[in-house]
Amino acid sequence: MIIEIKEWLKEAAGFIQVSLTQKLRVSQKSGRTDLVTNIDEETQSFLVKKIKQNYPDDRILAEERGFDKIESLNGRVWIIDPIDGTMNFVLEQENFCIMLAVFEDGIGQLGFIYDVMKEELYWGGKNRGVFLNDQPMVRPKDASLSEGLLGMNAYMYGKNIHSAGEIGHASMGIRVSGCAGVELIAMLKGNHIGYISNLSPWDYAAGLVLMDEFGFRYSNIEGKPLAFSKREYFLAATPKAYTEIQEHFIQNSK
Amino acid sequence: MIIEIKEWLKEAAGFIQVSLTQKLRVSQKSGRTDLVTNIDEETQSFLVKKIKQNYPDDRILAEERGFDKIESLNGRVWIIDPIDGTMNFVLEQENFCIMLAVFEDGIGQLGFIYDVMKEELYWGGKNRGVFLNDQPMVRPKDASLSEGLLGMNAYMYGKNIHSAGEIGHASMGIRVSGCAGVELIAMLKGNHIGYISNLSPWDYAAGLVLMDEFGFRYSNIEGKPLAFSKREYFLAATPKAYTEIQEHFIQNSK
Repeated sequence: MIIEIKEWLKEAAGFIQVSLTQKLRVSQKSGRTDLVTNIDEETQSFLVKKIKQNYPDDRILAEERGFDKIESLNGRVWIIDPIDGTMNFVLEQENFCIMLAVFEDGIGQLGFIYDVMKEELYWGGKNRGVFLNDQPMVRPKDASLSEGLLGMNAYMYGKNIHSAGEIGHASMGIRVSGCAGVELIAMLKGNHIGYISNLSPWDYAAGLVLMDEFGFRYSNIEGKPLAFSKREYFLAATPKAYTEIQEHFIQNSK
Repeated sequence: MIIEIKEWLKEAAGFIQVSLTQKLRVSQKSGRTDLVTNIDEETQSFLVKKIKQNYPDDRILAEERGFDKIESLNGRVWIIDPIDGTMNFVLEQENFCIMLAVFEDGIGQLGFIYDVMKEELYWGGKNRGVFLNDQPMVRPKDASLSEGLLGMNAYMYGKNIHSAGEIGHASMGIRVSGCAGVELIAMLKGNHIGYISNLSPWDYAAGLVLMDEFGFRYSNIEGKPLAFSKREYFLAATPKAYTEIQEHFIQNSK
């Protein structure tokens, strides 16, 4: 299964790279800054078709067009974001990812985050470790909040939602990339100690599998399990930084 | 002069890349999040030595150790940031740049921004155009504020200093990279329409030379010429976005 998923992702990435030399069709979803393109939709269709051909009994949860709700995580479920960071895809033509996760009965089994323009595939699975392309990655140090950089949703930071502004000030600084995949990769590399944002299941599913392998902690911002059924405020961090953020900022503000 | 500057920058970049395999000595300057390393200082010393050997009558303005003030921009002045984005250098080991500019009687003649880990040298000069390594770059479209992404200093955004929060909301989104060079490169590539931050001369000098070639506008945030003698709030943007930001946000808030 891993080998074929990698092949699908590379084929999809090649298709996306070529698409950047052509005219995109861009539409708005919920508002002016929530975009979708024909390439998001075509990439999702390609991956859905591959899954249905090879695993016809599995179910799929994905960002675009009718795949964005699922009744439960029972059985085997594929969770897909065909282009995570669509705004970056459209305006920067870089800093976006394909994300794909395989869950079984609610437990993450495989996760893939593909930085398409850098051609870097971060992947791994339960008790398998985490790899960058073919190289095993090293588990990052358990750094505290004051020692590290924190990926952040700009709106939460600016409005101090769930103390995000104060949490940012307690860190070494915030970074805003506009792409959950890019932020999760920064954590896996040990570049950032955490990430606070407002995410849907396809934004975090692949990342959770990889973060489990490296011992990161994650939940919704209030410390409850992620729902996999809606957009919600999201916190992931090193064990030390996660505990500090929960104890000093989130619980205090209640 | 261009050929030898490129050689110096490549030599310095090679030295910096190797340094990342060794233990850095990190010190605080003005506070907890204002860092300098032995590599910033050694890189600056290397470049200063090359300039003094080859251009003994020229003057130098540079970030570290006694080079950070200059009486005037008369004659030929070299303006250097040996590592722009020191926090990223220390914590991310990427997303930092070497920046070097040559000014004559206050007029920018040559500018170089080297993304060390990507090995991408953005350079150019007055009436020479802008190049990425050996390839000429194309002048970006004159996009308006509402059409583009805006590089931003996180503190200014969070505190709405000079309406930075409101300006950010009027754009397609803000991005925070923690490195002026990375932000200026994003503008030169047409990925971002502008950049608002709090900068010293060595943070912007090289960028101004390149932005002049592509017709970007820049000033301090209040619309006055940049001083080259202190840290100040900085605005650079496409002509359309610059005018919108000045007219709708800065002048209105006075």
